[in-house]
Amino acid sequence: MTTADLTRTLTLTAEELSDATALKGIFHQHKDGNPIPSGEVLRQIMDLLRAIIFPGYYGKSTVNTRTIKFHIGVNIEKLNQLLTDQIQAGLCFASCDDCGNSEKAVDNRHVAEEKAIALIKKLPTLRQTLATDVAAIYNGDPAASNFGEIISCYPAIKAMVNYRVAHELLLMDVPLIPRMLTELAHSETGIDIHPAAQIGQYFAIDHGTGVVIGATCIIGDNVKLYQGVTLGARSFPKDENGTPIKGIDRHPILENDVVVYSNATILGRVTIGKGSVVGANVWVTDDVEPNSRILKKTK
Amino acid sequence: MTTADLTRTLTLTAEELSDATALKGIFHQHKDGNPIPSGEVLRQIMDLLRAIIFPGYYGKSTVNTRTIKFHIGVNIEKLNQLLTDQIQAGLCFASCDDCGNSEKAVDNRHVAEEKAIALIKKLPTLRQTLATDVAAIYNGDPAASNFGEIISCYPAIKAMVNYRVAHELLLMDVPLIPRMLTELAHSETGIDIHPAAQIGQYFAIDHGTGVVIGATCIIGDNVKLYQGVTLGARSFPKDENGTPIKGIDRHPILENDVVVYSNATILGRVTIGKGSVVGANVWVTDDVEPNSRILKKTK
Amino acid sequence: MTTADLTRTLTLTAEELSDATALKGIFHQHKDGNPIPSGEVLRQIMDLLRAIIFPGYYGKSTVNTRTIKFHIGVNIEKLNQLLTDQIQAGLCFASCDDCGNSEKAVDNRHVAEEKAIALIKKLPTLRQTLATDVAAIYNGDPAASNFGEIISCYPAIKAMVNYRVAHELLLMDVPLIPRMLTELAHSETGIDIHPAAQIGQYFAIDHGTGVVIGATCIIGDNVKLYQGVTLGARSFPKDENGTPIKGIDRHPILENDVVVYSNATILGRVTIGKGSVVGANVWVTDDVEPNSRILKKTK
Amino acid sequence: MTTADLTRTLTLTAEELSDATALKGIFHQHKDGNPIPSGEVLRQIMDLLRAIIFPGYYGKSTVNTRTIKFHIGVNIEKLNQLLTDQIQAGLCFASCDDCGNSEKAVDNRHVAEEKAIALIKKLPTLRQTLATDVAAIYNGDPAASNFGEIISCYPAIKAMVNYRVAHELLLMDVPLIPRMLTELAHSETGIDIHPAAQIGQYFAIDHGTGVVIGATCIIGDNVKLYQGVTLGARSFPKDENGTPIKGIDRHPILENDVVVYSNATILGRVTIGKGSVVGANVWVTDDVEPNSRILKKTK
Amino acid sequence: MTTADLTRTLTLTAEELSDATALKGIFHQHKDGNPIPSGEVLRQIMDLLRAIIFPGYYGKSTVNTRTIKFHIGVNIEKLNQLLTDQIQAGLCFASCDDCGNSEKAVDNRHVAEEKAIALIKKLPTLRQTLATDVAAIYNGDPAASNFGEIISCYPAIKAMVNYRVAHELLLMDVPLIPRMLTELAHSETGIDIHPAAQIGQYFAIDHGTGVVIGATCIIGDNVKLYQGVTLGARSFPKDENGTPIKGIDRHPILENDVVVYSNATILGRVTIGKGSVVGANVWVTDDVEPNSRILKKTK
Amino acid sequence: MTTADLTRTLTLTAEELSDATALKGIFHQHKDGNPIPSGEVLRQIMDLLRAIIFPGYYGKSTVNTRTIKFHIGVNIEKLNQLLTDQIQAGLCFASCDDCGNSEKAVDNRHVAEEKAIALIKKLPTLRQTLATDVAAIYNGDPAASNFGEIISCYPAIKAMVNYRVAHELLLMDVPLIPRMLTELAHSETGIDIHPAAQIGQYFAIDHGTGVVIGATCIIGDNVKLYQGVTLGARSFPKDENGTPIKGIDRHPILENDVVVYSNATILGRVTIGKGSVVGANVWVTDDVEPNSRILKKTK
Repeated sequence: MTTADLTRTLTLTAEELSDATALKGIFHQHKDGNPIPSGEVLRQIMDLLRAIIFPGYYGKSTVNTRTIKFHIGVNIEKLNQLLTDQIQAGLCFASCDDCGNSEKAVDNRHVAEEKAIALIKKLPTLRQTLATDVAAIYNGDPAASNFGEIISCYPAIKAMVNYRVAHELLLMDVPLIPRMLTELAHSETGIDIHPAAQIGQYFAIDHGTGVVIGATCIIGDNVKLYQGVTLGARSFPKDENGTPIKGIDRHPILENDVVVYSNATILGRVTIGKGSVVGANVWVTDDVEPNSRILKKTK
Repeated sequence: MTTADLTRTLTLTAEELSDATALKGIFHQHKDGNPIPSGEVLRQIMDLLRAIIFPGYYGKSTVNTRTIKFHIGVNIEKLNQLLTDQIQAGLCFASCDDCGNSEKAVDNRHVAEEKAIALIKKLPTLRQTLATDVAAIYNGDPAASNFGEIISCYPAIKAMVNYRVAHELLLMDVPLIPRMLTELAHSETGIDIHPAAQIGQYFAIDHGTGVVIGATCIIGDNVKLYQGVTLGARSFPKDENGTPIKGIDRHPILENDVVVYSNATILGRVTIGKGSVVGANVWVTDDVEPNSRILKKTK
Repeated sequence: MTTADLTRTLTLTAEELSDATALKGIFHQHKDGNPIPSGEVLRQIMDLLRAIIFPGYYGKSTVNTRTIKFHIGVNIEKLNQLLTDQIQAGLCFASCDDCGNSEKAVDNRHVAEEKAIALIKKLPTLRQTLATDVAAIYNGDPAASNFGEIISCYPAIKAMVNYRVAHELLLMDVPLIPRMLTELAHSETGIDIHPAAQIGQYFAIDHGTGVVIGATCIIGDNVKLYQGVTLGARSFPKDENGTPIKGIDRHPILENDVVVYSNATILGRVTIGKGSVVGANVWVTDDVEPNSRILKKTK
Repeated sequence: MTTADLTRTLTLTAEELSDATALKGIFHQHKDGNPIPSGEVLRQIMDLLRAIIFPGYYGKSTVNTRTIKFHIGVNIEKLNQLLTDQIQAGLCFASCDDCGNSEKAVDNRHVAEEKAIALIKKLPTLRQTLATDVAAIYNGDPAASNFGEIISCYPAIKAMVNYRVAHELLLMDVPLIPRMLTELAHSETGIDIHPAAQIGQYFAIDHGTGVVIGATCIIGDNVKLYQGVTLGARSFPKDENGTPIKGIDRHPILENDVVVYSNATILGRVTIGKGSVVGANVWVTDDVEPNSRILKKTK
Repeated sequence: MTTADLTRTLTLTAEELSDATALKGIFHQHKDGNPIPSGEVLRQIMDLLRAIIFPGYYGKSTVNTRTIKFHIGVNIEKLNQLLTDQIQAGLCFASCDDCGNSEKAVDNRHVAEEKAIALIKKLPTLRQTLATDVAAIYNGDPAASNFGEIISCYPAIKAMVNYRVAHELLLMDVPLIPRMLTELAHSETGIDIHPAAQIGQYFAIDHGTGVVIGATCIIGDNVKLYQGVTLGARSFPKDENGTPIKGIDRHPILENDVVVYSNATILGRVTIGKGSVVGANVWVTDDVEPNSRILKKTK
Repeated sequence: MTTADLTRTLTLTAEELSDATALKGIFHQHKDGNPIPSGEVLRQIMDLLRAIIFPGYYGKSTVNTRTIKFHIGVNIEKLNQLLTDQIQAGLCFASCDDCGNSEKAVDNRHVAEEKAIALIKKLPTLRQTLATDVAAIYNGDPAASNFGEIISCYPAIKAMVNYRVAHELLLMDVPLIPRMLTELAHSETGIDIHPAAQIGQYFAIDHGTGVVIGATCIIGDNVKLYQGVTLGARSFPKDENGTPIKGIDRHPILENDVVVYSNATILGRVTIGKGSVVGANVWVTDDVEPNSRILKKTK
């Protein structure tokens, strides 16, 4: 192939791929010029959040009690800026056709600024809750010798920071971004928690790869899951058009003090009663009484 | 240890590690000076491909219908360059001892150029097929509110872009690279699809962590898998020397409209008939009639 | 919100998050000014180690037998420097309150230097052992056409490099870092191997997502695991205070030549006898005689 | 000094430097939260402009006539974005106290957008003018073998691209940025051209280090300067308060076809007549007749 | 040339260049393993210093009065760390043969820590002095409309920040680094000020390219220089061995309120009296009475 | 301006700038797809060369006599690769219309490989020569306390490394690149040496800003120049068409042991005899007898 043929082919393919008809099925509506939330920037946002919530463990700063506030101050200012932009992008994605210079864009900017600052004000509380998760892992793992090891090493902490931030954003009706944040953690840890799930304090996951926690799950305090646990839906009721009906409670409820061992599967809107233990590889689709022990028979 | 001792130890260890005998078991033949395909560059190639196929969602560009062709044009030119180099490296890896300046290297260059451009010409078709995968996920997930959310967030889409590109390259007899591409997606998503598997349109995977799809699988249209599903081999027939025989069909066939729920395992060259449903945690090693429902008995 | 209000809110939140009381539950003791081992630097260390152990496959260098020693030499010098710093950080993390300029810090520096050089001296042996893992995968996989493909593509190799390095560091009593290294591989591959586990030569893992190998596992030579296999603990005996007792042997022993198929779960201090095969999805909590075949009944 | 003393000193100094009184003499007015034009971003802007005006010579693209428009398209879109932001920053710097969210900021944004696009529309003309500068150098230098060598190597071209762009921006009343752009070239080339100077076509500078061209200079077509030439002011008339009076024509006029050799100094509002030659190291403070040769007597 | 020949040549040349004898004339003594101050890190140090002294104008931060202390705090901590390392490197360079782990190295570390913190404590005063330089330029240039323009654009400010910092470090007997810092500014601005020169307040340089200020110059307050001015030595008295005698006062003294116009040359230990004006291109090797006007006769 | 108008304007301008006619005057011939030597890569090449020639002073490595060869080895391999590519680009630039895949391109590749390796073989000699330049500066400057200070700080050394490398490449008939290399140094140091000039050993330049050394200069051993010295041409004889005649000796000859003080100008093919001194600001256009002292009369 001559150079001329080559460049002709490249040009033609580029044009074919840029044609409006070729983009059908990719864009759900006209979004001329609106930025879409960026996976890369959201990753930076999570890095900042981790450095703010667990200073010293994440981020580049060495912890010392006198200069720590400088680092947190700089990180919070940067976070506010990036988060506002991304929330605005999410709002434009969800609400307008051409946000370019319109009044809608200006409105979205104001709303984004308020949501970003609202999240930032929640950070001290979020850190307290995450500290309970650290404590829960520490208390349940004979291998862990101190909190620092858990914060540095355990994938569950990474997944929970993303989930707890994403959950707050979802409660504020921020579109798209909550799901992107939990998917970042899913990619990093193999733990897939839907941002709409409700999870109490002192929550622990061990190993974690393959854990799935569905959107309408309700999980109490002091619950522990092992790797490969699915808290899923059993079926999706459909409307008369055959479309899955949205918003139906379809995932399990785990009351306080429940433990679910590896690769167990709990499906549907069932309740696992307080203090129950679900054994490894067990399959559950019915309610479980409090303080039950649901174990698989060995071989 | 004095500085002098330290540098002596470093030097001696470096020499020991560089000795030809120390490299035995690492290199399968002499490869003096041939570059090997680079994981880092392949990652860049996938970033470019995602930005070309789903402009706006991936890559740094904001989508607008007038300037999009500039971005796609630049990305395609860059893609062509990187891909040609990597395919050449793959060909040299597979075919020659010292490709440095030989005629073989020149031949490989020409072949690489043609394969790279051939892939690029397939991109419009690949995008159409991937759009069916997006639609399949959208239709099956009550949580998804639009196509954009699926393209931005769902790991299955990342895995499928890599698989569909890798499969095309494998059909063109490009060595090594197809497998490296699907492993990049495996690392990112926990979904492990062999590039030689054959997968129809409208293919959906939910959550996805732990999914394994073997090399000789044949999957029809409109099939959906959940997390942890294994489509694997049951045994490897060996030849008289005890070496596994290559190229035997050893993985399942899933006909159109099959659904396989989480953590189900299907092993061997069995056929799951059209429209069948395989339940969560089910274990299948025999053929399944069309429209069957293979469910595990609950607890 | 006015700019003034915004900056006031940011400032107040930064101060609240920097307050000593707000950091309670995050730090287990006062660590004024000690650096903590950095995930980012450990990632660079693993990149260097992979480039040293498998030159050409990892790192930026093209392999040729004459200049390879330059690249390995430079990489080893860099490795020594980064590793010494990180080990020192790990030692400070484990042993002192304010390591800033103290004698303890100087001691830790010397100890770190010796441990770093000790690891480097082990590298030729580590490479030999890892070469047996490559050979084991090659011999067991009909799809693999040469060693290079395995080194380039198979996640098991990445996981094993990290594990074998981490295990050596753990044997040298380096704190924290071994666990961080295996977690890096866990995030990258979905394979979670505790650095304290003991694993023989010619060890193979196929696909790998979801594999968990506990801290007191003992695995012989020539063992193969498939994806989703758990080698876990059954229960944690507790002391009179209800705290899990440390250091009890609580994970399985796999003798030589054992194969465990996908998603099988083996729990507790049981022994799987030499040459046994444990089938997919099987659940084992008792000892298994040598040369047994523990299979799940099909559907 | 103990760690505690050290951090105390750092903290106190930081606070001292942040105190409002310590910033007096640095800020000319309150600029709470307005970004200031960034030297780093202006450098990127010049890189884009050079890549657009002289594609292939600057920037990363290889020149070919078919794909060049993709590169120029992408670069222009990026340029428009960066330039709009910087012009807005310049306008805020010059016009408002707290631009944060005010109406003034919105106005400045609109004005910035129009000025950015106006500059972009001037680019084809600017390139034509710069091509005359390239031709002028080529025709006057026995060492130059083709245009490409001049564009690639000659500092005068870098200085002229910056000057001609800066001059356009200054004509559009963009504050601060024109001067910053010519200072970037000054740092890079040693050629210091004030953006307000007026310079005709076919302008050449050889070597260039130390050349100074003042703000009210008027230079005709086909003029050539050598290194170290100063076209400066002789004195600054002051008003009754002793402040230099602004806007007075105080620098030389060089008519068409003038040549000024190295280290010559021409001061004040004098006119060097058409076709004149000013010799090296000559000192001129009076008008020069057309076609004169003002030479220094040799030793 | 075959690949084998090529690699042989590269290897041989590398060895030849690494041979101890080939390094003679390059190293003045054995420096086994001591780091040498790094031009790249010194550049970062100057970036930090500029961002601390002129926040908003340099560095990435937007200026606002409430969060500015966070940015300055972080920058000062980073500065302290980098500067301590570089000063230590400078001390080792000047004082020891093998600083690797010796007591000398520990001493140098302590000395470096004290010198770094001493410089930091001087920063508020340095900023005040630099503010006088800004004011001096502002008052003397009809083109400058505000302080911000001068800080952002004028090369003299960059040169003076480097000089004033370097001068402080030289007064503290920090070796090598002061000279490297002023050379960084020399490269950036064409203004070459020896760090040992003594320069008063309200010092202005216009344009600046080619200015040279020698090591034993003494310059009063409120002095202004134009481009190309040399304040140099006339001759170097030599000792009986023909070696230039060190430490002799050999450069000019400029008393308060002196102005020196472009390309003037003042050589030797002469005194230019208070309030004098030295015209462009003038050559001075004798003392000048106060309030003189030394002008070149025009043509 | 609406978003639509904006994108239309950007698109139209991009097309206008990409039009073949708009590129006239920019390209001297059709160069479809040939890469042009890259300023950015040449900068990397100089960084490598400086790190190879003056290890420890430049580049990131700490000098120690045992591991230095690893660093030099890696740098030489990288240098060979980058330099070969750039020389090939230079050859294509000078010799062919469409080098894309032609035989000419293959030829150019081979020639480039030989020239790159030839330069590398010259490096030990080049380092020896540069060491004489270091010694010359050391011997002539009362401020310099050791060789290391000169290598680290003095711009003359940077300029001479670039010049001596560029001169070798020019002797090998490498097009374009020699000039680009000396221009890099010109931008960095203000010293402009034409790569074709011939310069002996023990060459020193002090300060250096504004020095110009023309293409046909011949400079003996042990010569010293100060800042602002011009060794230029006096006139360019033209042929009957008015084009400057190439290749005529038009710049000065400086015999051994000549010193030229600051801002002196020597023009034309004159000879400055052995041991002569040319004073500051002196203007010379005639031959000078050996051992002369050409001084300007003071004021």
